[in-house]
Amino acid sequence: MGTQLSAQTFRKMLKDIFELQMPFHQLIGLEIPCYENNKIELKIAMKPELVGNIMHGILHGGVTASLLDVAGGMIVFSDVLENMEDLSEEAVTKRLQNLGTIDLRIDYLRPGRGKEFTATATVIRTGNKVAVARMELHNEQGDHIAFGTGTYMVG
Amino acid sequence: MGTQLSAQTFRKMLKDIFELQMPFHQLIGLEIPCYENNKIELKIAMKPELVGNIMHGILHGGVTASLLDVAGGMIVFSDVLENMEDLSEEAVTKRLQNLGTIDLRIDYLRPGRGKEFTATATVIRTGNKVAVARMELHNEQGDHIAFGTGTYMVG
Amino acid sequence: MGTQLSAQTFRKMLKDIFELQMPFHQLIGLEIPCYENNKIELKIAMKPELVGNIMHGILHGGVTASLLDVAGGMIVFSDVLENMEDLSEEAVTKRLQNLGTIDLRIDYLRPGRGKEFTATATVIRTGNKVAVARMELHNEQGDHIAFGTGTYMVG
Amino acid sequence: MGTQLSAQTFRKMLKDIFELQMPFHQLIGLEIPCYENNKIELKIAMKPELVGNIMHGILHGGVTASLLDVAGGMIVFSDVLENMEDLSEEAVTKRLQNLGTIDLRIDYLRPGRGKEFTATATVIRTGNKVAVARMELHNEQGDHIAFGTGTYMVG
Repeated sequence: MGTQLSAQTFRKMLKDIFELQMPFHQLIGLEIPCYENNKIELKIAMKPELVGNIMHGILHGGVTASLLDVAGGMIVFSDVLENMEDLSEEAVTKRLQNLGTIDLRIDYLRPGRGKEFTATATVIRTGNKVAVARMELHNEQGDHIAFGTGTYMVG
Repeated sequence: MGTQLSAQTFRKMLKDIFELQMPFHQLIGLEIPCYENNKIELKIAMKPELVGNIMHGILHGGVTASLLDVAGGMIVFSDVLENMEDLSEEAVTKRLQNLGTIDLRIDYLRPGRGKEFTATATVIRTGNKVAVARMELHNEQGDHIAFGTGTYMVG
Repeated sequence: MGTQLSAQTFRKMLKDIFELQMPFHQLIGLEIPCYENNKIELKIAMKPELVGNIMHGILHGGVTASLLDVAGGMIVFSDVLENMEDLSEEAVTKRLQNLGTIDLRIDYLRPGRGKEFTATATVIRTGNKVAVARMELHNEQGDHIAFGTGTYMVG
Repeated sequence: MGTQLSAQTFRKMLKDIFELQMPFHQLIGLEIPCYENNKIELKIAMKPELVGNIMHGILHGGVTASLLDVAGGMIVFSDVLENMEDLSEEAVTKRLQNLGTIDLRIDYLRPGRGKEFTATATVIRTGNKVAVARMELHNEQGDHIAFGTGTYMVG
């Protein structure tokens, strides 16, 4: 049974988990300014440790992949929450444990120059077992750095 | 003109650059025990900061993507070196500056459990402008964690 | 030297080549109602031979992949034409001979039900050597059947 | 309940369905010389209608994608059959109806020249809901034409 909380409440809890309890997210400085139904925004400030190329001072492609992967996973899980009938903590935890990336494609469009990078995502295929999202990374000037497509296990 | 060095010498120089002068590689603790013609081996020791999921203590998918991306880029560049006629420092530097990931696919096969992870790579399409590599990530017990496929600009 | 024709003229020639001189396109009934700068529209009418699943009467996934691959290739080549300085037949033919798909990703969103399918495409990365496009397939009712992402050799 | 048949028997039935009852497969001339546990071989003879480029007489990339998609789907379903406890016709039919490609990546390695093409596949991730396969296409001389990676819904 358990108490029923709202999808919104669970998103707040998840935001905290993803920001504060994921060691790798803290290592790279991941922030989540927005996590709502159908909307996710991840931010990261450029810092010396994230540079992949000292000559050009650009963001490492692995950081780009990390941000896009997380953005996709969070947006599909938001969708899962909206479609769950039983929103008990037990049921949500179980679904969260099943969440995992099956495959990920990153298209690097231009070098990752900038002071701040924002990842966004949209669900393009929703389902009980598998969901697919498309993601984008832009810098603070709106330059489009990368596209992503991710297929996630959600059930 | 410039002095002609061997491909092997350049790989040694690159190994140092990738291990010691790439801030993000030092952040995650990337080591390159082997970089020869047709052979690359990247290693990373598990450490708390690389964990993506505290409940299960598994490697963050973004670290997996980072390792596979770098392994692919290094193996295609090794191939470039083998096929260059002019191995002057100037010519090699120019080719290195053109090196970049166009797109990357990661297939996550199983959770990244382990103490140490090794990425390897093979060139599957060679060319003057574009090359494609396939990559693998295994843990210290030989469990196959992930596959990767990367398309790289090389000229 | 050769006479300089316009990009628009070459697109008309290409439209004819792709519609009338590519045997596989005629086999599946590919039509190209629109091929302009930044815009491509491929159409195909459902017919019994294109069915992949007789129980459900849906379009074979390979036909979807074919349409999206061609749409992506044509849109990146349109972009090439817009950026070429020398629009002689010789120069254009040379570029066309270099055109080729390096890699392709298809995301199948829903079963291919419908009477007519339309593929569209947009260039997301432009370049002298490599270009990347994103593609979509919809049926006549506007249902979104599939997404595609293609990396093409263009020079 | 229903009678229990063997996985091998169902593979024979499926081979017939895929060869004889899929209109698109007959259109392109798909043959299935081998379909066993962990092994699939699809063959196609080059014929004028499959040409994508009349100047070079090479196989259309969409045919390559079609073959690799089918090879991947059949190998993951063979794996499903091996792991099913209830091999009644009803249970197998239900699983077969769930079979579908979620996403597909094709890496085109070289132009599709040849008289005959063979597609093979291996399961790289097995599961109750989702499975992933890697596929290859070679011509009759053993030239490696393309690689594929496919993620399939299997439950």
